[in-house]
Amino acid sequence: MNLPDFTARYLPVIEDALHAALAHNEPALQAHYGMMRYHLGFADAEFRPAQVNAGKRVRPLLCLLCCAAAGGEPERAVPAAAAVEILHNFSLVHDDIEDNSPTRRHRPTVWALWGCAQAINVGDALFALARRTLGGLSHQGISPERILIAGRTFDDTCLALTEGQYLDMAFEKRADVTVDEYMRMIEGKTAALLATSAGLGALAAQADPARVAAYRHFGRALGLAFQIQDDVLGLWGDEVVTGKPAASDVLQKKKTLPVVYALSQTNGAAARLRALYASAPFTADDVPVVLALLAETGARKFAEARSRESHAEATSALVATGAVLPALQQLVSSLLQRAQ
Amino acid sequence: MNLPDFTARYLPVIEDALHAALAHNEPALQAHYGMMRYHLGFADAEFRPAQVNAGKRVRPLLCLLCCAAAGGEPERAVPAAAAVEILHNFSLVHDDIEDNSPTRRHRPTVWALWGCAQAINVGDALFALARRTLGGLSHQGISPERILIAGRTFDDTCLALTEGQYLDMAFEKRADVTVDEYMRMIEGKTAALLATSAGLGALAAQADPARVAAYRHFGRALGLAFQIQDDVLGLWGDEVVTGKPAASDVLQKKKTLPVVYALSQTNGAAARLRALYASAPFTADDVPVVLALLAETGARKFAEARSRESHAEATSALVATGAVLPALQQLVSSLLQRAQ
Repeated sequence: MNLPDFTARYLPVIEDALHAALAHNEPALQAHYGMMRYHLGFADAEFRPAQVNAGKRVRPLLCLLCCAAAGGEPERAVPAAAAVEILHNFSLVHDDIEDNSPTRRHRPTVWALWGCAQAINVGDALFALARRTLGGLSHQGISPERILIAGRTFDDTCLALTEGQYLDMAFEKRADVTVDEYMRMIEGKTAALLATSAGLGALAAQADPARVAAYRHFGRALGLAFQIQDDVLGLWGDEVVTGKPAASDVLQKKKTLPVVYALSQTNGAAARLRALYASAPFTADDVPVVLALLAETGARKFAEARSRESHAEATSALVATGAVLPALQQLVSSLLQRAQ
Repeated sequence: MNLPDFTARYLPVIEDALHAALAHNEPALQAHYGMMRYHLGFADAEFRPAQVNAGKRVRPLLCLLCCAAAGGEPERAVPAAAAVEILHNFSLVHDDIEDNSPTRRHRPTVWALWGCAQAINVGDALFALARRTLGGLSHQGISPERILIAGRTFDDTCLALTEGQYLDMAFEKRADVTVDEYMRMIEGKTAALLATSAGLGALAAQADPARVAAYRHFGRALGLAFQIQDDVLGLWGDEVVTGKPAASDVLQKKKTLPVVYALSQTNGAAARLRALYASAPFTADDVPVVLALLAETGARKFAEARSRESHAEATSALVATGAVLPALQQLVSSLLQRAQ
């Protein structure tokens, strides 16, 4: 089965599981659950049913694909797939507050519509729902021992997300972030959840611990490659493809890999960049100047090489799992070959 | 063993488990974990070790006492006791942001010291740590099946906390909250976690499902009685005993049970109260006026009677568990006989 066929077959199953996880009939709580449904794309801002594009569901698809690749029926991994997607969305709701982002996927964010206090609480509810949804593995013929291992992995991943977010926020205030520190940050913020998405798929397929670890390794490398590519696209990507304004990462002075690399160099362009990043907020006029200086330091080439390295690591890790599943290989390719 | 002896014996065990749950050696993350330790009372604002009074640890003590009452070694329930205390503290960190509270237990709150964004993330980390800490039950000779049940209860409780918090925030904007709606709110915000603290203690003692349910029933009624008493103390309590300024709940226009009851009455005092609550923020001069009107509607007597009812329900639920443990009965009495 190729990726379009797999997606056509299993995306509706994932959506059904997400809908079921967010269902709640108590009239007094309709707005609480309505805000969650809004964020997932299942409702509009008046809580009427809607079908809005709310992300590509990369993590749950990866989870089901890894279950299939490890020899399991994809259905078995559905509770884990829904859980990782809900956890991802919890982190987005809170990140949007923390980053002061008014829009996501062309819609107002939860905090922008209903205020900070409600948005914090909505994120917390998604967190709890994610964990509860994972417990659905017990209806899939998976042993209690194995479900406890899945749960421990999930909890460690939640914690890793907060660690990555802590580092990301701490880096905003620092001019001397190293490439190693940056890698540690995206390890928590992006790679941990992709590792867990892949690993839980294999775990649901009853893979032994060594194979589960191999899938985690694959997911982690994929996450690193994906994040670094996202950093490159955030600076030099096509607005139509990325869905966010070109060079918005520059205007926000985000410490992405190309920037971290450039600021740590010793040449004249790096010195000028350091002065610019230490000064007042950027305006649109600064963007071409910053991009030119970044190019001069070789930052784009460096980041692209790093992304390729992680991509190669993901590819060989996938070979090491023994998986031969065209749809999974297609997902890997599609994630890492987005048009720039 | 009486309550002071039980506390002297087991409070240090609880504190050790909390310390262990918050330990993390990675230098780059010292501030992330430091903020958590600060909130729990284990560190000062510079993250130096400290021993600050950070709450009475009512929930973990209740958990261990219920384990003992149900015939188990209290040590078995320690992971559950630490987990409920960490979960409680997660909710406090986020509530403080949502309620805009600058101080807690005579110290600045996490958001007041480090900003909203960090505080949201610190709360999230405590949430994940709470769930992970519960997993420690697997080192206590408790079966995986039973730990999965404990986990499901815990997840439902997390969700109930967010539901209670949602209702509490929604009530702020409404003048027509009913007593039933108020009871539903404190069911989620307070009673659910006390029910779970008691129930997990019994579960760790290998009690059968009916007995676990009886302990949950006890904990729930105790929570309702405790919360309503807290409402009464918030209006008429002694500042020295409650630790918060007298009548601060009036100044914040909190919709506590006496207020909800009074606003729903039909007499002249109620009409005047409704007009006052609909008008500009209160000043200190309004406090005696509001308190006199509340008294005139019989709100204090109503709330005290409701608290006594829930107290009586807790007492008979405790009898129904079959537990005969003086220390547990002393905890119940001490919680419900705080000086007014």
